[in-house]
Amino acid sequence: MDSRRFDATVYARRLAAAAAKTAAAGLAGLVITPGYDLRYLIGSRADTFERLTALVLSAAGEPTIVVPRLELAALQEPAAALGLVARDWVDGDDPYQLVSAALGGGAVATAVTDSMPALHLLPLTTALGALPVLATEVLRELRMVKEQAEIEALRRAGAAIDRVHARVPEFLVPGRTEAEVAADIAAAIVAEGHSEVAFVIVGSGPHGADPHHSFSDRRLQAGDIVVVDIGGTVEPGYHSDCTRTYSIGEPEPAVTQQYSILQRAQRAAVEAVRPGVTAAQVDAAARDVLTAAGLGEYFVHRTGHGIGLCVHEEPYIVAGNDLPLRAGMAFSVEPGIYFPGQWGARIEDIVVVTEDGALSVNNRPHELTVVAAQ
Amino acid sequence: MDSRRFDATVYARRLAAAAAKTAAAGLAGLVITPGYDLRYLIGSRADTFERLTALVLSAAGEPTIVVPRLELAALQEPAAALGLVARDWVDGDDPYQLVSAALGGGAVATAVTDSMPALHLLPLTTALGALPVLATEVLRELRMVKEQAEIEALRRAGAAIDRVHARVPEFLVPGRTEAEVAADIAAAIVAEGHSEVAFVIVGSGPHGADPHHSFSDRRLQAGDIVVVDIGGTVEPGYHSDCTRTYSIGEPEPAVTQQYSILQRAQRAAVEAVRPGVTAAQVDAAARDVLTAAGLGEYFVHRTGHGIGLCVHEEPYIVAGNDLPLRAGMAFSVEPGIYFPGQWGARIEDIVVVTEDGALSVNNRPHELTVVAAQ
Repeated sequence: MDSRRFDATVYARRLAAAAAKTAAAGLAGLVITPGYDLRYLIGSRADTFERLTALVLSAAGEPTIVVPRLELAALQEPAAALGLVARDWVDGDDPYQLVSAALGGGAVATAVTDSMPALHLLPLTTALGALPVLATEVLRELRMVKEQAEIEALRRAGAAIDRVHARVPEFLVPGRTEAEVAADIAAAIVAEGHSEVAFVIVGSGPHGADPHHSFSDRRLQAGDIVVVDIGGTVEPGYHSDCTRTYSIGEPEPAVTQQYSILQRAQRAAVEAVRPGVTAAQVDAAARDVLTAAGLGEYFVHRTGHGIGLCVHEEPYIVAGNDLPLRAGMAFSVEPGIYFPGQWGARIEDIVVVTEDGALSVNNRPHELTVVAAQ
Repeated sequence: MDSRRFDATVYARRLAAAAAKTAAAGLAGLVITPGYDLRYLIGSRADTFERLTALVLSAAGEPTIVVPRLELAALQEPAAALGLVARDWVDGDDPYQLVSAALGGGAVATAVTDSMPALHLLPLTTALGALPVLATEVLRELRMVKEQAEIEALRRAGAAIDRVHARVPEFLVPGRTEAEVAADIAAAIVAEGHSEVAFVIVGSGPHGADPHHSFSDRRLQAGDIVVVDIGGTVEPGYHSDCTRTYSIGEPEPAVTQQYSILQRAQRAAVEAVRPGVTAAQVDAAARDVLTAAGLGEYFVHRTGHGIGLCVHEEPYIVAGNDLPLRAGMAFSVEPGIYFPGQWGARIEDIVVVTEDGALSVNNRPHELTVVAAQ
């Protein structure tokens, strides 16, 4: 068994569910190129770009995989296990016509994975004679509600990134650059059980006030507050994503006080999580605490995002999203406060909705962790 | 200065060249979402997916960047340095209309980056009222011929991956799985100077016969021939990609003999490289050596691919590609031989075309490296 895939029954169930939803949506079929949707549906890690690989789920015909002959070997096992018809092609063939044929030919209403690149979507549109729609509507619900095996993968990812955060204090030495710290963290992400590094953010001092900073040549110094937001992938492709905030030396009283409010806001949002509550209500639970303390204007982003095969996926925990939470949904709860030019802080855990409320896959302390200033 | 970007003059020159080629192609503009083309044109590492960020290079109007307000801070520095007009938007706005406006409005002939996802291309097509074409034609030549700073980055990447290959023998211990070896290699890729791991292939024994194998739970054993094909990224985003083949214990005489022919084939292709020679001729140089020795049928892929901000980009070193090589082009030379169910071998270096022939950025020995069988 390949540890990088779930059992074939998992994928067979997903394919059947996707086909049923496609038919229910009145579409002739789905066309899925390599990416998260393909990984979700058949467990394939294919990442061909310039040559077309596409799963074609036709409402009428047989599920088909169109694949360059060179890639056939890598797809033969999942294709056989799932009963997919393989249509291979070589340079000189027109793979878009193979997709069209698998859909029954002629101009038909199809949906494509939202990651399909223009490189393929433009010639496919020409071959189909009609502009496709996005497959998001069909796949959203399936992808959002995690199965037990997916939740276990997210928990393994969470435990691995917790082990990395446990080591972060040793990397945060005044005089070192954010980039040097980031390199140590990247190595630790792999060493602690991830197969790949997804991202590393080390935002020290004023850089912590930019929620989208990555890392730079700025050197850490005494008095810095440092936001460390990191993640990686564990097999079969699920992500970790966890933020903790550190202080180089004892923080000033004002920082301690504002941070403690952030901590309360994050806890309030986690405690608000349960089936039936909307995504917007979870966002509001964090925001209300900060607003009541006069810090609302410094919380400039949404409270969280879904996570799984993508680092960012649905459900988005944001004002206006009236989606009711369901058991099995997994997302980040990550309020932050940002004082431009000065400092910032964020606390982030990944939680899974259960019938009893939120199950957090991250379990490191939420306090501002003080490291030595020299 | 941010070490993860080149100097602003590099990007200003590229933008001007791209605008000139856009006009020459009779297009109203280019629309470039985050990805390699955006990184090439303005040095941005933006990787927003669900919210539109797009560089709009209009043949008539001012160069514009359409960007979610949250991401504005990260783009303000390059935008200011390059004189881009920033048009930020918030949830509820229609960013596709901002793109349309930056192009002058109305149905116009535009080209889009080949990596633009369907998520954005479909609504953009609706907003523009016309199906775009691919920007590849406009950007191909600019991207293919590397500048001095890019060549230096590729050399740094090559030296870093050479240091990883120097350590591979210590990881190749019989009884360990390919996956365990791959994890060690991934950590070494970062430790030896890459900012990210791009890919790790450890193909032992019969797995070496599949050129697209990644790694598995198979355990190394005495007598295995092991293909190790690895790469990472060095700032500002350039890739390494190097393959060496190892033998667990002394190889059989037939393996030694066939491997020596592969070595000659690889050298012949490298020696064929010089300005004016076509990509197809370089491919043929390797293939002819293998074919003359009766091994042609076991060399089942093209000889190489361009490399830079993408691991795979133009020029492709493949039969039928009559593109004449020019000084500054960079690509892999990587013939292999694959005996299904038995073993495989590949030798890969990245070379840069110079007036005097190929400059190899990889310099580890090409021989089959024998490691202890116990």
